Amino acid sequence: MTPPDPDYRQVVERSFQEAAFLSDLGIRLHDVGPGWCETVLPVARRHLQHTGIIHAGVQSTIADHTAGAAAMSLTPAHEYILTVEFKIHLLRPGKGESLFCRAEVLKPGRHFHVVESQVYALDDGKRTLVSKLVATMAVLARPSAEA
Amino acid sequence: MTPPDPDYRQVVERSFQEAAFLSDLGIRLHDVGPGWCETVLPVARRHLQHTGIIHAGVQSTIADHTAGAAAMSLTPAHEYILTVEFKIHLLRPGKGESLFCRAEVLKPGRHFHVVESQVYALDDGKRTLVSKLVATMAVLARPSAEA
Amino acid sequence: MTPPDPDYRQVVERSFQEAAFLSDLGIRLHDVGPGWCETVLPVARRHLQHTGIIHAGVQSTIADHTAGAAAMSLTPAHEYILTVEFKIHLLRPGKGESLFCRAEVLKPGRHFHVVESQVYALDDGKRTLVSKLVATMAVLARPSAEA
Amino acid sequence: MTPPDPDYRQVVERSFQEAAFLSDLGIRLHDVGPGWCETVLPVARRHLQHTGIIHAGVQSTIADHTAGAAAMSLTPAHEYILTVEFKIHLLRPGKGESLFCRAEVLKPGRHFHVVESQVYALDDGKRTLVSKLVATMAVLARPSAEA
Repeated sequence: MTPPDPDYRQVVERSFQEAAFLSDLGIRLHDVGPGWCETVLPVARRHLQHTGIIHAGVQSTIADHTAGAAAMSLTPAHEYILTVEFKIHLLRPGKGESLFCRAEVLKPGRHFHVVESQVYALDDGKRTLVSKLVATMAVLARPSAEA
Repeated sequence: MTPPDPDYRQVVERSFQEAAFLSDLGIRLHDVGPGWCETVLPVARRHLQHTGIIHAGVQSTIADHTAGAAAMSLTPAHEYILTVEFKIHLLRPGKGESLFCRAEVLKPGRHFHVVESQVYALDDGKRTLVSKLVATMAVLARPSAEA
Repeated sequence: MTPPDPDYRQVVERSFQEAAFLSDLGIRLHDVGPGWCETVLPVARRHLQHTGIIHAGVQSTIADHTAGAAAMSLTPAHEYILTVEFKIHLLRPGKGESLFCRAEVLKPGRHFHVVESQVYALDDGKRTLVSKLVATMAVLARPSAEA
Repeated sequence: MTPPDPDYRQVVERSFQEAAFLSDLGIRLHDVGPGWCETVLPVARRHLQHTGIIHAGVQSTIADHTAGAAAMSLTPAHEYILTVEFKIHLLRPGKGESLFCRAEVLKPGRHFHVVESQVYALDDGKRTLVSKLVATMAVLARPSAEA
C-alpha cells in the first residue's frame, strides 16, 4: 500500500507528542508503516483499577489511539482522522510490566477506515492478548491553515 | 428495583476510591441508586488529545466505569463486576469545563448485565451529549475472603 | 427537524418495496417521520431458530433496515444510505406473534448518521423489548441518473 | 483444543437442521472443528436489498449462526449457546453467487465465548472479504431433559 501522504510518519509522531492525554499516561509510539502502527506503555500503579488489573480505560486509550495512528498512515495531508466509534473486548485480566499494541487497517476507505487493534500484556517475558478493538475512523478535511 | 446487596453504595464508593486510574484522572462519584450511577470529571489540559478535544480514552474511561458502577448496584455482595466488552460512539467533539456521565442498566441478568452510559460535556452552562456507550458486564463470584 | 428531501416518504417506501429480502421475510413499513421509522413483522415458523425463539438474524434484519430508513428520512435526494456497522444486543428471548421496531437518529451528520433501533416482541397483548441496535449509517452520493 | 463434548459435530449439525430460519435462507454447514466452523449460502434474488447487493441482514444471519456453531464446538453437552451481542462491519458491497463464512473462537470462557466471523463473497472465482463480526456468546445450562 502506498501511503497518500509521504510524510505520514511525522503526522503520526506529532499526534503522539501533541496529545496531552497520551504523554500523561506514558503511551509511546514504537513503530509505524502504511496501514499499521505499534505502541508501548510501561504500566504504573496509577493505571490500575480497584481489582488490581489494568483499567479498561487505559486499554481503550492505547487501542483507540494506535488505531487512529494506523488510519493516519493512509490519509492524505489535507485530511485528518477522528474516531466515530469503537468496540473493545476485554478478553483476559490485563496484568504485567507493560502493554504492547498493534493496530492494522482492515479496510481503508474514502470517508472512513475500519481498523483493528490487539493489546498484549507483557509479564515476565510472557506476552498475552488481553484486548481487541474494532473501530470506525472518519477521514475529515482539515480546516484550511491559511484561514 | 430492590438492590440484592443493601450495602451497594459502599461497594460503589469503594470502587471509586480504590481504582487508582479513576483518582488519577479525577473522576468522582456524583450519585448512585439501584440500576443507575452518575459521575463527574473536571476537565484539565492533560485530558485532551492533539486536536484539542477531550480524548476518546477519557470518555471511554468515565463511561465504562460508571456503567460498571451501575451494574454493581444490582449485584449481590458475594459477586463482582468485570467489563466483557463495550461499544462507544463519539457523537460530537468533547469540549468544556467538565464531563457528566449517567449510566443505566438496560437489562440485568444472572451472569451479565447490559448497561448504557451517556456522557455530556458542560461548557459555559450548556450541556451537550458527546458520547454513548453500551456494555456487557460480567457478574463473577468473588474469590472467597476466608481463603 | 426539517427533512432535506421533502419526498423522503417515497424514498423510504420504495426501499421496502424494492428490498427483496424484506418482502421475502414479511417486514413492512408502519410509519416514518423526520429522524425516525417504525416497522412490523408478523412472525412465522420459518423465522425461528433451533431453540424455538426468533432468530437473531431476523431481529438484526428488521433493526438494521428500520435504522437505515430512519437515516434515509434525513438524507438529501441526491444521496443514499449504506450500513457501515452495527452492534445489536439480544436482551431477552424473542417470542410472540409479531415484532415491532422503532428506530431513531441519535446524531445526524454530513457523512454518516448514528441511529438506534429498539425491537419489541408482541405476545398475547404484552410488549417486550427484545433487542437494541446502534448503527453507523454512511451517507453516499448517488451514482448520477444521467450517466 | 479438546472439545468438552465429543459429539459436538452432531450438536452443530442438528442446530443447522432444526433452525427453521437457516434452512429457509439456504445456509448450510460446510465443516466444523474444535473452535471453528465454516458455512456456505448460495445467493438468490430474494437475499438482496433495494440497491442490488446482499442484504446486511443475510450477512448478519450467516455470520451470527456460524459464530454460534463455533462456540457450540467448545461447549459441554449439558450446556447450550445463546448470542448476547454482536457487532458487524459491512466492509464492501456483498455481490456474487455465494457467501462463505468462517468463524473462530477468539477466547473460550466458562460463562461466555468471544467469537469472530469473516464473511466472503465468491464472485466468478474471486473471493472477497465482505463483512466481519465479533460476538459474545453466552454458555447456558440446558433445561434438564427429564423435567
